[in-house]
Amino acid sequence: MKNTFGSSVSVTIFGESHGTAIGAVLDGLAPGVPVDEEFIAHQMDLRKAVGSISTARHEADKVRIVSGVFNGRTTGTPITFIIENQDQHSRDYGELAYKARPGHADYTAMMKYHGQQDFRGGGHFSGRITAGLVAAGAVAISALKAKGITIGTHILTCGGICDRQFSDDLAGDIAKLADSDFAVLDDSVRAPMTARIEAARNEGDSVGGRLETAVMGFPAGVGEPWFDTLESVLSHMFFSIPAVKGVEFGDGFALADMTGSQANDSFRSSGGTVRTSTNHNGGILGGISSGMPIIIRTAIKPTPSIYKEQDTVDMRDMSDTTLTIKGRHDPAIIHRARVVLDSAAALVLCDQLALRFGTDWLVSEQ
Amino acid sequence: MKNTFGSSVSVTIFGESHGTAIGAVLDGLAPGVPVDEEFIAHQMDLRKAVGSISTARHEADKVRIVSGVFNGRTTGTPITFIIENQDQHSRDYGELAYKARPGHADYTAMMKYHGQQDFRGGGHFSGRITAGLVAAGAVAISALKAKGITIGTHILTCGGICDRQFSDDLAGDIAKLADSDFAVLDDSVRAPMTARIEAARNEGDSVGGRLETAVMGFPAGVGEPWFDTLESVLSHMFFSIPAVKGVEFGDGFALADMTGSQANDSFRSSGGTVRTSTNHNGGILGGISSGMPIIIRTAIKPTPSIYKEQDTVDMRDMSDTTLTIKGRHDPAIIHRARVVLDSAAALVLCDQLALRFGTDWLVSEQ
Amino acid sequence: MKNTFGSSVSVTIFGESHGTAIGAVLDGLAPGVPVDEEFIAHQMDLRKAVGSISTARHEADKVRIVSGVFNGRTTGTPITFIIENQDQHSRDYGELAYKARPGHADYTAMMKYHGQQDFRGGGHFSGRITAGLVAAGAVAISALKAKGITIGTHILTCGGICDRQFSDDLAGDIAKLADSDFAVLDDSVRAPMTARIEAARNEGDSVGGRLETAVMGFPAGVGEPWFDTLESVLSHMFFSIPAVKGVEFGDGFALADMTGSQANDSFRSSGGTVRTSTNHNGGILGGISSGMPIIIRTAIKPTPSIYKEQDTVDMRDMSDTTLTIKGRHDPAIIHRARVVLDSAAALVLCDQLALRFGTDWLVSEQ
Amino acid sequence: MKNTFGSSVSVTIFGESHGTAIGAVLDGLAPGVPVDEEFIAHQMDLRKAVGSISTARHEADKVRIVSGVFNGRTTGTPITFIIENQDQHSRDYGELAYKARPGHADYTAMMKYHGQQDFRGGGHFSGRITAGLVAAGAVAISALKAKGITIGTHILTCGGICDRQFSDDLAGDIAKLADSDFAVLDDSVRAPMTARIEAARNEGDSVGGRLETAVMGFPAGVGEPWFDTLESVLSHMFFSIPAVKGVEFGDGFALADMTGSQANDSFRSSGGTVRTSTNHNGGILGGISSGMPIIIRTAIKPTPSIYKEQDTVDMRDMSDTTLTIKGRHDPAIIHRARVVLDSAAALVLCDQLALRFGTDWLVSEQ
Repeated sequence: MKNTFGSSVSVTIFGESHGTAIGAVLDGLAPGVPVDEEFIAHQMDLRKAVGSISTARHEADKVRIVSGVFNGRTTGTPITFIIENQDQHSRDYGELAYKARPGHADYTAMMKYHGQQDFRGGGHFSGRITAGLVAAGAVAISALKAKGITIGTHILTCGGICDRQFSDDLAGDIAKLADSDFAVLDDSVRAPMTARIEAARNEGDSVGGRLETAVMGFPAGVGEPWFDTLESVLSHMFFSIPAVKGVEFGDGFALADMTGSQANDSFRSSGGTVRTSTNHNGGILGGISSGMPIIIRTAIKPTPSIYKEQDTVDMRDMSDTTLTIKGRHDPAIIHRARVVLDSAAALVLCDQLALRFGTDWLVSEQ
Repeated sequence: MKNTFGSSVSVTIFGESHGTAIGAVLDGLAPGVPVDEEFIAHQMDLRKAVGSISTARHEADKVRIVSGVFNGRTTGTPITFIIENQDQHSRDYGELAYKARPGHADYTAMMKYHGQQDFRGGGHFSGRITAGLVAAGAVAISALKAKGITIGTHILTCGGICDRQFSDDLAGDIAKLADSDFAVLDDSVRAPMTARIEAARNEGDSVGGRLETAVMGFPAGVGEPWFDTLESVLSHMFFSIPAVKGVEFGDGFALADMTGSQANDSFRSSGGTVRTSTNHNGGILGGISSGMPIIIRTAIKPTPSIYKEQDTVDMRDMSDTTLTIKGRHDPAIIHRARVVLDSAAALVLCDQLALRFGTDWLVSEQ
Repeated sequence: MKNTFGSSVSVTIFGESHGTAIGAVLDGLAPGVPVDEEFIAHQMDLRKAVGSISTARHEADKVRIVSGVFNGRTTGTPITFIIENQDQHSRDYGELAYKARPGHADYTAMMKYHGQQDFRGGGHFSGRITAGLVAAGAVAISALKAKGITIGTHILTCGGICDRQFSDDLAGDIAKLADSDFAVLDDSVRAPMTARIEAARNEGDSVGGRLETAVMGFPAGVGEPWFDTLESVLSHMFFSIPAVKGVEFGDGFALADMTGSQANDSFRSSGGTVRTSTNHNGGILGGISSGMPIIIRTAIKPTPSIYKEQDTVDMRDMSDTTLTIKGRHDPAIIHRARVVLDSAAALVLCDQLALRFGTDWLVSEQ
Repeated sequence: MKNTFGSSVSVTIFGESHGTAIGAVLDGLAPGVPVDEEFIAHQMDLRKAVGSISTARHEADKVRIVSGVFNGRTTGTPITFIIENQDQHSRDYGELAYKARPGHADYTAMMKYHGQQDFRGGGHFSGRITAGLVAAGAVAISALKAKGITIGTHILTCGGICDRQFSDDLAGDIAKLADSDFAVLDDSVRAPMTARIEAARNEGDSVGGRLETAVMGFPAGVGEPWFDTLESVLSHMFFSIPAVKGVEFGDGFALADMTGSQANDSFRSSGGTVRTSTNHNGGILGGISSGMPIIIRTAIKPTPSIYKEQDTVDMRDMSDTTLTIKGRHDPAIIHRARVVLDSAAALVLCDQLALRFGTDWLVSEQ
């Protein structure tokens, strides 16, 4: 399977940056989930380009649902989201048919698709394709929320500037992020982060960062010991999002430098259930959810589209040459990517819950 | 699918730490791959407990192949590896039926399996289950090697002590690792790392570390843009290995702090093919292999079995209590895990190659 | 996975009979396959309602391709086909929200989707959904044809009237079917079959029949012994097509009454290859293609939408009641279904070939 | 995926007729299902060769469970069944390395595995491999039975002699079959069927037949409209069983000759639920279970191993030649295949139930 992911709840995505339309098919979600088109539009807005820190390409990103919704609710059959492309400037991309942009998928796409790929604007590799994922994810996020499961992602670092970590008031943090158009927990880092992105743009360069995602209210006992651990399926999805180069759970790489006595999370009885005193393991033990918040951190590499001259190869004669990228690009995508991660996580978790508790659990009373 | 992974080439694993036998079924590998039982035994030895830095449990780990091999070669039908358990001390585990060990999967297993799981020695969650993966992986490693694709993993850090990174002589580094029973590139770090592990053991504690894996000779153009990116499928497999809590490719999390002009790998023409001047992206662009070495770093948390008293809950009456773990455990597993990563990577890559080039590519002449 | 089928080459379908649009996403087909929009339109026409022997609902069935095609060829990324619905008369269906039509999926859909399904015109269960399959299948059929693999389906029986079987000139038979709007091999049975369908319509009743599909030029050695035998994957796809209730290969059920000496197909050497003297096994032995024509016969039940009064249950109060179906329906679908089977078979076979020989085989020179 | 089938509950099979051992891995079955080793042995006995109407090869078929069972119950992790081969006479098979037996998979295996396959006794294509399926299926059958779902298969026809069909007392019929070593409903047909098989044996020939399977108590609302219809997944599994060449549901191929008014099953209210007056659709409508008995008929071709001289090709020089099969073979397998179908159906249905209602449904109280 290539552009389809998930087992009981699955998503299929399609489209190219400069093609006719992009979109997604969301299949297997429980019947009867309310579909809130305003919330979908709100999520699409979070992904959109904003002001001086994003690309100058502006798309309405109006989502048309052509199947799977009846009387405002999911039917249980495939939900199809279509987003027409409108603001393409394809003439900027002629040279890319034979000159691969460093850091982009142009060269590997040539090797895989033998030059048949739609190379304009990154084609099917473009971050634009995440728009379909966000539309589908919005329905998944709503469904989870109705069961008390909430998700939030913030910009932990951008261009070297750090946000604070999630606090003990995780519910408050997630609520704050839901309405924020620049997802930081500490408002005072917004201005310096934005300034860092603008500085990169002014230099014709770009910056990356780290995103931190928290999932709250996810029940214990979901996941597998092998091979579909919760970490496995979440990372599988996350590593398919353009620019993601690292994924860690709980304290992640920092755990490598701890001792067992530091890293182990003690169990304590709390109100009839079991909780851990700390959460170094990020809500997952042995691949299975523990009921504690799931914590995921993701590395986003700097946008590879920069305006500085770069070395590349002319594939027509295999000669060394240079390339200066034209077109309209993001000096950073981290502020746009956070909603993509929320959506991606929601889709994976809906699938895991359906596999564990059945296809109707998301609309069950209990 | 739960304990089966892969599509064209797949592996199914089974067994519990204190059950009768463990093992694996490797399916879909090309017919005609030589099966070298000595090499399998060699790989099993690399995974085995060694001296004072490992568990006192000693298993012969003799691998019996009961299907799928005929006249010393793979038939193309499922190859089954069976390893009998011998040196179990199950009486050490009685308390674990109701007291979850911190950092272990005991609690989440209870929530998933309602107490029906075989809790002795971690049961199906035990690192012992990786023995089947190593047996299957040995055949995959041989098959890849015959096509010029080699894999090596070294202990990048352990308990805070660092090995050097892979050098420009990657072939030499990988060759060195293949024969090493303690996989470091810089021989001078072996003694301090071993000492650190022994110190942890003497304190009744444990240590973790980071592993770095390199794959050389893997062809360009393999992988998918969505959702089965090469990073996705490799991380899916890696995150299913016990104790793995972080996975990154190329410069991984460090990329988050770079600018685009620092992170982009320029393309250069070299002997009729395209190479990059640097390899910050770790051999994968847009989810597809570039022909450059694939570089993966993995965080291994410290072994959760420590001998210090820890807080836990008595699940029989949900009261807070303490637990002191008995049994024989590893103060570190990082030196044993490296061959598991090699094996896991080999299985994933064989699958990807078969999907891309067909089931017979591994035994093709070219 | 629900509405997605296939592994290396897959198809996802979506839509409801009276929704906004229906369609399909075809993923994984080799890059560089020419996409002939005229041929797609031709195939859509074969599926369309014709004259007095079909429904009075008339849809233009114009296929819009919104992704995956660039410069007239497949890119290798998902191809999305969208067909807008236009001629719905949804007011005819109000009663169906609580009265299940005998022979239809209304009742089972209620049990699965708890009344949330779009019940108008059969919703997602409608034969109309096959239009997406035909659009996707048209590209697959073209791709196969370029490699010398052709497919044809004829109406073996309809309402008790029999066509002749495939002759020794199978290539001629398949060519004849490709251009026929009523797929029979013996032209003299067209009139009586049509008359039988019209008689059923006049009686407010319907008829079914059997379809026979032949695939020519398919290479030997494709398929699996377990579980993905060629029969398994073809029947899996065929049994998902509405109204199919039986599938057999080669002599199928008739083999049950033969002896081994009658049923076995002897091997003979012929022009450097091996052929069988007879083809009782329909081109598949042990789940794997033999290089002989693949022969499949499919039972199509009579259209369940009839105009006679029928017994049913009022689900609102679980009382017995009657139902007289309104709306526009087909007295037979067998003449429309044949192109659906061709399409379905082509999609399965492209997937099997890609799994066996790699993703590029369909566009390879050899 | 090749030798693994199922999604939430899956089975992997392995082994060759003359290899060391055969077996199966059953994964994903709910934790806490009692494992009755006597019942497994009973089912294995039903599959075994009996007297003059079966092969002279006699295997103890003792099943060793090496994982996934703890304290007599399933753990929820993979259950591995191993059956050692004992009574092989491999010397009978030397010629088969280059002379394909008509009706067997020898030739197609050569084309797929390039001569690397274990050709002795049919290798991985042998009906012997179904022993693993029967062992795994026995656990599934027990689990279903505890939830009121029972399965029975009888020999509907053998060598032209017909058993009666299932009666209105379906529960009684299924109970009768469970204990019968020759599965016919009408005891008076046992002797003539047996005589027909013995006559075939005496002629060095073989016979086939049809099996009819009924499933009772299966809940309504399980299955999918596309592509995983209940017919699709059941036929997928059934067509992977050696010698199956046709599968039909309900009235199957006979439906093709009915009118809609004859074929439609009217709905009637009955004790708070909905039932159909007739069951022409075999318990499945629109791919989803209706709560009525599921009825499947399967065509079994005559055993291809016959002792008459047959035409074949010597693959060494591609010359026409003849072959006279040696070894010990079944003049019929239909009486042995019935328990294979029961097992296969049980495995598929457990998977479908887990997908629909969650992994624990089989052990839930309700």
